Amino acid sequence: MGINSVAVVADLGESFGNYTIGDDDALLGLVTSSNIACGFHAGDPRVMERTVRECVDRGIELGAHPGYPDLVGFGRRLIEATEDEIRTDVLYQIGALDAFAKTNGAAISHVAPHGRMGSIAQTDDKHARAITDAVAAYNKDYIVICQRGVLAEESVKRGLKVGYVFLADRGYGDDGWPVPRSHEGGLIYDPEQIGQRAVQVVRDGTVRSVTGNVVPLGHDADVLLLHGDHPAVLENGNALRAHLSDAGINVTGLRDVLAEKESARNR
Amino acid sequence: MGINSVAVVADLGESFGNYTIGDDDALLGLVTSSNIACGFHAGDPRVMERTVRECVDRGIELGAHPGYPDLVGFGRRLIEATEDEIRTDVLYQIGALDAFAKTNGAAISHVAPHGRMGSIAQTDDKHARAITDAVAAYNKDYIVICQRGVLAEESVKRGLKVGYVFLADRGYGDDGWPVPRSHEGGLIYDPEQIGQRAVQVVRDGTVRSVTGNVVPLGHDADVLLLHGDHPAVLENGNALRAHLSDAGINVTGLRDVLAEKESARNR
Amino acid sequence: MGINSVAVVADLGESFGNYTIGDDDALLGLVTSSNIACGFHAGDPRVMERTVRECVDRGIELGAHPGYPDLVGFGRRLIEATEDEIRTDVLYQIGALDAFAKTNGAAISHVAPHGRMGSIAQTDDKHARAITDAVAAYNKDYIVICQRGVLAEESVKRGLKVGYVFLADRGYGDDGWPVPRSHEGGLIYDPEQIGQRAVQVVRDGTVRSVTGNVVPLGHDADVLLLHGDHPAVLENGNALRAHLSDAGINVTGLRDVLAEKESARNR
Amino acid sequence: MGINSVAVVADLGESFGNYTIGDDDALLGLVTSSNIACGFHAGDPRVMERTVRECVDRGIELGAHPGYPDLVGFGRRLIEATEDEIRTDVLYQIGALDAFAKTNGAAISHVAPHGRMGSIAQTDDKHARAITDAVAAYNKDYIVICQRGVLAEESVKRGLKVGYVFLADRGYGDDGWPVPRSHEGGLIYDPEQIGQRAVQVVRDGTVRSVTGNVVPLGHDADVLLLHGDHPAVLENGNALRAHLSDAGINVTGLRDVLAEKESARNR
Repeated sequence: MGINSVAVVADLGESFGNYTIGDDDALLGLVTSSNIACGFHAGDPRVMERTVRECVDRGIELGAHPGYPDLVGFGRRLIEATEDEIRTDVLYQIGALDAFAKTNGAAISHVAPHGRMGSIAQTDDKHARAITDAVAAYNKDYIVICQRGVLAEESVKRGLKVGYVFLADRGYGDDGWPVPRSHEGGLIYDPEQIGQRAVQVVRDGTVRSVTGNVVPLGHDADVLLLHGDHPAVLENGNALRAHLSDAGINVTGLRDVLAEKESARNR
Repeated sequence: MGINSVAVVADLGESFGNYTIGDDDALLGLVTSSNIACGFHAGDPRVMERTVRECVDRGIELGAHPGYPDLVGFGRRLIEATEDEIRTDVLYQIGALDAFAKTNGAAISHVAPHGRMGSIAQTDDKHARAITDAVAAYNKDYIVICQRGVLAEESVKRGLKVGYVFLADRGYGDDGWPVPRSHEGGLIYDPEQIGQRAVQVVRDGTVRSVTGNVVPLGHDADVLLLHGDHPAVLENGNALRAHLSDAGINVTGLRDVLAEKESARNR
Repeated sequence: MGINSVAVVADLGESFGNYTIGDDDALLGLVTSSNIACGFHAGDPRVMERTVRECVDRGIELGAHPGYPDLVGFGRRLIEATEDEIRTDVLYQIGALDAFAKTNGAAISHVAPHGRMGSIAQTDDKHARAITDAVAAYNKDYIVICQRGVLAEESVKRGLKVGYVFLADRGYGDDGWPVPRSHEGGLIYDPEQIGQRAVQVVRDGTVRSVTGNVVPLGHDADVLLLHGDHPAVLENGNALRAHLSDAGINVTGLRDVLAEKESARNR
Repeated sequence: MGINSVAVVADLGESFGNYTIGDDDALLGLVTSSNIACGFHAGDPRVMERTVRECVDRGIELGAHPGYPDLVGFGRRLIEATEDEIRTDVLYQIGALDAFAKTNGAAISHVAPHGRMGSIAQTDDKHARAITDAVAAYNKDYIVICQRGVLAEESVKRGLKVGYVFLADRGYGDDGWPVPRSHEGGLIYDPEQIGQRAVQVVRDGTVRSVTGNVVPLGHDADVLLLHGDHPAVLENGNALRAHLSDAGINVTGLRDVLAEKESARNR
């Protein structure tokens, strides 16, 4: 369809109180879009406001990054919550972040569920329904960032736009899904390779898997995710941006990417 | 000025998880307006949504009731937070509650700081500035419920309307301030007396103090507060409503009360 | 083996801050042993101390009742924690409760994992190992209260005594396991029936199942659990105690019950 | 009195979940004694166990470092808690840490209240009573680390030993109290100066104040505190140890220092 643009996103605002985590200063110079923690698995009201302000100042899209209410587990442990609990927890967090967006003259652009809540929502109907019910009830115009799966399907059902994400610094299996970090090749350490892969997935929709095969991703790559806890996030991001630029791919906000896709579809 | 109307408010939605507190069912039948806990000192996302829905169904005004982040202390213990911490904590809580208002087709009408945060804000500049900065930044149209003092002054400075509250079931001193609950006469147990006092304070702006003097309240009585943890809250509320009705005083939402006052002032 | 004694236990100290839950006053008059919440899923330091004191004053055995760190979920939701997380969370809670035991001249007698942590530990090796590792490391002399399953097995492996529990007010299936509360017959409402069942399970080791069959429990009934959130807990407990007394069954602490069992075994 | 020994202590184990704070690896090589966070203002059960193990492996004394229940404020904000709340919060935290001491074959040696709780306890009777009541009830043999003031007095009243602390990297006023960090000279950046001051305060009991006067500390210097959040903690600690060593001052555990003092007193 001739899409030639992509967004770049990272998880931001994960510090808490006296605790600092992630290199937000570096990431803010690399991304077009942000997933901002909302105080349940990470983040606090000061961190949220500061992160929103930095993003607004730099023209970075605001995204809500809700997670389980589990600070000590950083939202990485499954909590067997009910659909109602997940839905209302997500709503609460979106509203809280939106307070800082509104008071800084901006608006939330997308929602990306965090950690284990985000990964399980790709396959678990209950989570997918709960999250998309919350988003659709709050604002029909929000984009949901996810991979293919039930979260994408439930988003579409509710009329929400989907921004398909490619994990730029992670290895993928032959099935087109990222392999766990702990696996051989699960985390990619070569910035150049990260840059090349980004171009390839945007251009061709394919990725070289951990077993060496070129496999289809199985969904669009609307937005590329950089992990702030990667030991070389700055090098990765710079290489990614350089490769995209050299390839003539337009790096822009996710909203623009989806608009271009929409308009290409209608041509 | 010929104002003949008053609102009735109570703190609602203070349950948490498996824990139930307060007789919200009784209170919902008595009030025109609600102060809804926002998850820091009390309340959780499920309780907040349920309370918002009940209020919306019954035409009760929604109020945000932010407090210190101190569930175990129920927001009743001073936390020496910075102005920035108080402001952002309040903003976060307002946004979170507003998510449930919005998704239920309603809007927040007022903000009433809870417990120790609310009482200290009557006299402490830092708290008064922090709270009113948060409210004014979020929505200039919100009313701030308080007694006379710096919170009222800072509200007015920022162009926020003030809803002056009278604590209907509490004893007042000769200085026109409520005396502590633990003091002789601090809590009023006779429902009839509560009803008579309500009429008097709305009509004349005076209250019979714990020492037996009739003293001026020192500010308007736009809204009467019933405490849900009073052992006889239902009897108190019924007597209050009956006395107001018998006296021909219109019990209506706080927004209407202030509009009437405004219009009387302009006459 | 001629055992003619049984303990009676209930979950106690589940209040938190301003929130009261359960009828501890009633329960304290009915039990020989306590499962005291330790501040993670319920309870706080004041509630813990007050509960310990009440138990010590009445000669009630002290038990630690550790749970997941999930106050809003009351420990009833699975958290997919690691073995290390479960073990250290349990250790922390036991130590915290023991502070109140020690400073009141008493000692913890047993540990009973709470809610979902307790139920999953009957079948999940990871949970069973984590909990029993914590208990055995802290005090080899503690009893673990559980039903049959891997928690019992891992306890025995580590040289810990097991106190087998029968849920006195719950319906059982033909497999000798309690059926969910929500199922037909899952909760027993007739106090007399609760009393009769108690006698039968202590005497014969059998229970009439929800389908009407008399089935073996499959393990001893060393201790009978009363649920404090049963609407008729006081009636249930009184009937239970009366029936046991009429049947000549000695109601005593769990430590004595196990000692009697041990001595019968050695006869 | 011819005391020629001193202990060195630092706050340790302040990380939480996914959040790391402080350079514990560096500090563990410098100290004889530890103040270990207990999960209220910092620390979690995994961090606590890991820190205890490191200390035990290296022969470092274990100290409990209880604080306010305020993770987001890192225990640095006053909470107007009741005496009962402070006492039971401290007891809970000591017991929790002791679980990890006991299961690693060790014992807690001292208690040092953290942050704002610690500083206010030097002057506030309520805090001083609450903390020392908790410590004395739990273990009469524990040392309380503090500066001169009511905390020291209440400790002595209850028969608890006091370990007087000198803040090795902080500037002192002419009154013999440390000046706030934010003040001119509040934080000392020259490691050599830190080393020289340590020798002087141990030898002579005096300190050169921020105004340049040599003033008496006003109490013993039994233990020297290094702050882990000082930008040059490793250099500071090395210089401190080198200067003490060059001066022939014995760096040893606080228990030994107090025993030597006791024995000198009895000579």
